[in-house]
Amino acid sequence: MKKRIAILPGDGIGKEVTRGAVEVLQAIGERFGHQFSFSYGKIGGGAVDEMGTPLPDETTRLCKDSDAVLLGAVGGPKWDQIPVHLRPERGLLKIRKELDLYANLRPTLYYSSLADASPLKKEVIEDVDLLMVRELTGGLYFGKPSERSTQDGRDVVVDTLFYQKEEMTRVIKLAFELAQNRGGKVTSVDKANVLESSRMWREVAEEVAKDFPEVTLEHMLVDNAAMQMVRNPKQFDVVVTENMFGDILSDEASVLTGSLGMLPSASISEKGPYLYEPIHGSAPDIEGQNIANPLATILSVAMMLRLSFGLEEEAQAVEASVNEVLNNGFRTKDIASPGKKLVSTTEMVEEVKATI
Amino acid sequence: MKKRIAILPGDGIGKEVTRGAVEVLQAIGERFGHQFSFSYGKIGGGAVDEMGTPLPDETTRLCKDSDAVLLGAVGGPKWDQIPVHLRPERGLLKIRKELDLYANLRPTLYYSSLADASPLKKEVIEDVDLLMVRELTGGLYFGKPSERSTQDGRDVVVDTLFYQKEEMTRVIKLAFELAQNRGGKVTSVDKANVLESSRMWREVAEEVAKDFPEVTLEHMLVDNAAMQMVRNPKQFDVVVTENMFGDILSDEASVLTGSLGMLPSASISEKGPYLYEPIHGSAPDIEGQNIANPLATILSVAMMLRLSFGLEEEAQAVEASVNEVLNNGFRTKDIASPGKKLVSTTEMVEEVKATI
Ligand SMILES: CC(C)[C@H](C(=O)O)[C@@H](O)C(=O)O
Ligand SMILES: CC(C)[C@H](C(=O)O)[C@@H](O)C(=O)O
Repeated sequence: MKKRIAILPGDGIGKEVTRGAVEVLQAIGERFGHQFSFSYGKIGGGAVDEMGTPLPDETTRLCKDSDAVLLGAVGGPKWDQIPVHLRPERGLLKIRKELDLYANLRPTLYYSSLADASPLKKEVIEDVDLLMVRELTGGLYFGKPSERSTQDGRDVVVDTLFYQKEEMTRVIKLAFELAQNRGGKVTSVDKANVLESSRMWREVAEEVAKDFPEVTLEHMLVDNAAMQMVRNPKQFDVVVTENMFGDILSDEASVLTGSLGMLPSASISEKGPYLYEPIHGSAPDIEGQNIANPLATILSVAMMLRLSFGLEEEAQAVEASVNEVLNNGFRTKDIASPGKKLVSTTEMVEEVKATI
Repeated sequence: MKKRIAILPGDGIGKEVTRGAVEVLQAIGERFGHQFSFSYGKIGGGAVDEMGTPLPDETTRLCKDSDAVLLGAVGGPKWDQIPVHLRPERGLLKIRKELDLYANLRPTLYYSSLADASPLKKEVIEDVDLLMVRELTGGLYFGKPSERSTQDGRDVVVDTLFYQKEEMTRVIKLAFELAQNRGGKVTSVDKANVLESSRMWREVAEEVAKDFPEVTLEHMLVDNAAMQMVRNPKQFDVVVTENMFGDILSDEASVLTGSLGMLPSASISEKGPYLYEPIHGSAPDIEGQNIANPLATILSVAMMLRLSFGLEEEAQAVEASVNEVLNNGFRTKDIASPGKKLVSTTEMVEEVKATI
C-alpha cells in the first residue's frame, strides 16, 4: 500500500513527538511492506513567525493532497499576546474547517501499568474504556455574531451557538457506528433543560437511534456528565456531544486514567483526509529537552493506520508494541515511577520500533 | 434578631430535607435567642400539578417579602414529558431572574470522615477547600434568540450567549471579595481563545483585580479547568466563571470529595433576599423513605445565618454540630460505611439538634 502523509509538527514538543511517530510509521511500512511518504507543513506559532499566518494556504493544500495528516501541537507563551486572529490555535480551528473535520474521537483507555499516576482510585478507573466523540466544526466555535457592541449605552457581548440539524445527524450517526463495534452504548450529552439546540440534539439522537436497534441510547445532561465522568467513568462506552461540551468533557476524561501523555485523537471528515494528533499540548517548558512522551503521537498513528488506511493488523502491532514497552518498565518522565526505567523521547521511540 | 424565612420545599426529598433544616434553625433560634418565622411556598412539579405553573406569582411575592429563602429541590420523572415552559426547573430559572440572583456560591469541602466515599485518592483531595462562584442570570441561559428556523431549506437552531459587561463585573468583584477572606486567590475560568464573551470576561477580571492588590488573579481555560479540577483540586481557592461553564464545573467539583449529599449553596443578589439550597437534586427514587441526607440543607442554613443575617457564631455552631455528628459516626445511607451508625433523615436531624 502507498500512502501520502502530511506531517505538521507545529510548536514546542510537536517536532520531537511527530519525528518519533514518523519513525514508527516507517518501521511499520518496512515490516508490513507499505510505502509511506511524508511531506512537511507549517502550522501554529512557527508559521506565524515565518509566514505571518498560523495556517498558510500551502499547508492546507498539502493536507488536502494527502491521505492523512499527523499534527504535533501548537501554541506557546511567545504568541499569547499577539492579535487573536493570528494566534497559533486559530491555525487549528481553521484546519478543522478547511478539512471539514466534523468529529473528534478521543479514546480514554486504562493502562494497568500506569494506574499509580491517576488521581482516581484504582477501583474507579480499572478497565475504563471510553470513547469521546466531539462535534468539531459547529456550535459556539464558529457561530456569528461573536462580537461586542453597546445597547442603551451599556457594553454588551454576544457569542452564538449555531447548528444545522444535518451537522448533528452526521456526528451522532458516527457515534452509533462506532458503538456498534464497541460496547453497544451511546451516551448523548446535552443541556436540553436549558438550550433549544440541545433539545434538537436530543431529537436527532432519538431519530438516529432508530437505525441502530442493537445500540442502547442514553441521554445525560452535561452537568451530570461532568459528575459521572469522575464518579463512575466505567459506565461509559461512546459519549457524543456538541463542540463546547465536548471540549470540556474530553479534557476532563483525559486525566482520569493519569495517562494524558498517552492519549491519541483522530478528527474525521466525510471524505478524508483525517487528522491525527496527541491530546497533549505543545509543552514549551520541556521543548528540545528530549524528555517528552512520544506515545500519544505514536498511538495517534495507530488510529491513522486503522481509520484512514484500514490497516487493522498494523494498528494493533503499534498498540501491542506500546503495551509491551510499558510492561517492560520503560517510562518517559511524565509517567515515571519508582523502580521503572526512565528513558528519553528518542529512547522510547527506539524501544517501540524494536518491538514492532 | 427577628427574621422571616421563605421555605420552598419543592419536589421529591425536598420536603424532608427542608423540614430538618427548619428544625435546626429553630434550635439555633432558641439557643441564641432569635426569632425565625417560616412561610411556605410552592415551586417545581408540585406547583405545576396544583397551580399550573412551576413558579406561582405568590411564591415570588412570598420570597420578595422574606429575609432569606430556603429551597429544597425540584423535578422528577413525572414532569419530564410536559412542555418545556412548564418543567419544574423553569421555576428555578425564573426565581433566579425574579430575585436577580446573579451569583451562585458553592463551597466544596473535604471531610476527612468521608474520604472513603470519594472517587479520588486521599492525597489528591485531602484539605480541598474550594469555592465555586458561578454567574447565574446571564449567558446561554437567558440569551435571545433561542430558537429553530430554516435557512436555505435547512433546519437550523441557535442559542445565544449574551452578557452585559456590568453582569460580569459584579460577579467577578464578589469573587474577589470572597477570596480576600479566604485563600487570597481567584481563578477566573473562560474560553478566551475562542469566545469574544470570554475575552471581555478576562478583561473585566483584570480590571477588577486592580482594586484587590492582595488577591492573586489567575486565568484558566475551561477545558484545562475541567482537567485541573480532577488532577489537583487543592490548587484552587475561589473559582469564578460564567453561567454554563459554572454549571458544569461546579457539578464536577461537587463529586470530588465524595460528599455530594453534604454540599450547600447560596445564591446572592445585590439587595437580597438570598436563596439557599442543597446541591443535590430531588431524588424521587428515595422520596418519602426518610433516608435522604439532610446535611446539605442544614449546611445551607449555616450559609444563610452567615451571609444573610451576619450571624457568624450561629453559622459556626451549625457547622460544628454537623462535624461532631459525623465524627460521632452517624451516617445517612448515601454516606454510610462499615462500622458507622446508619441513621434516618429524622434521626440525623435529631443528632444535629442535640449537639447545638
Ligand atoms: C486550542 C483550542 C482552540 C482547542 C479547542 O478548544 O478546540 C483545544 O482546546 C482542543 O480541544 O483541541
Ligand atoms: C435544573 C437546571 C436548569 C439547573 C441549571 O442548569 O442551572 C441546575 O443544573 C443547577 O445547576 O442548578
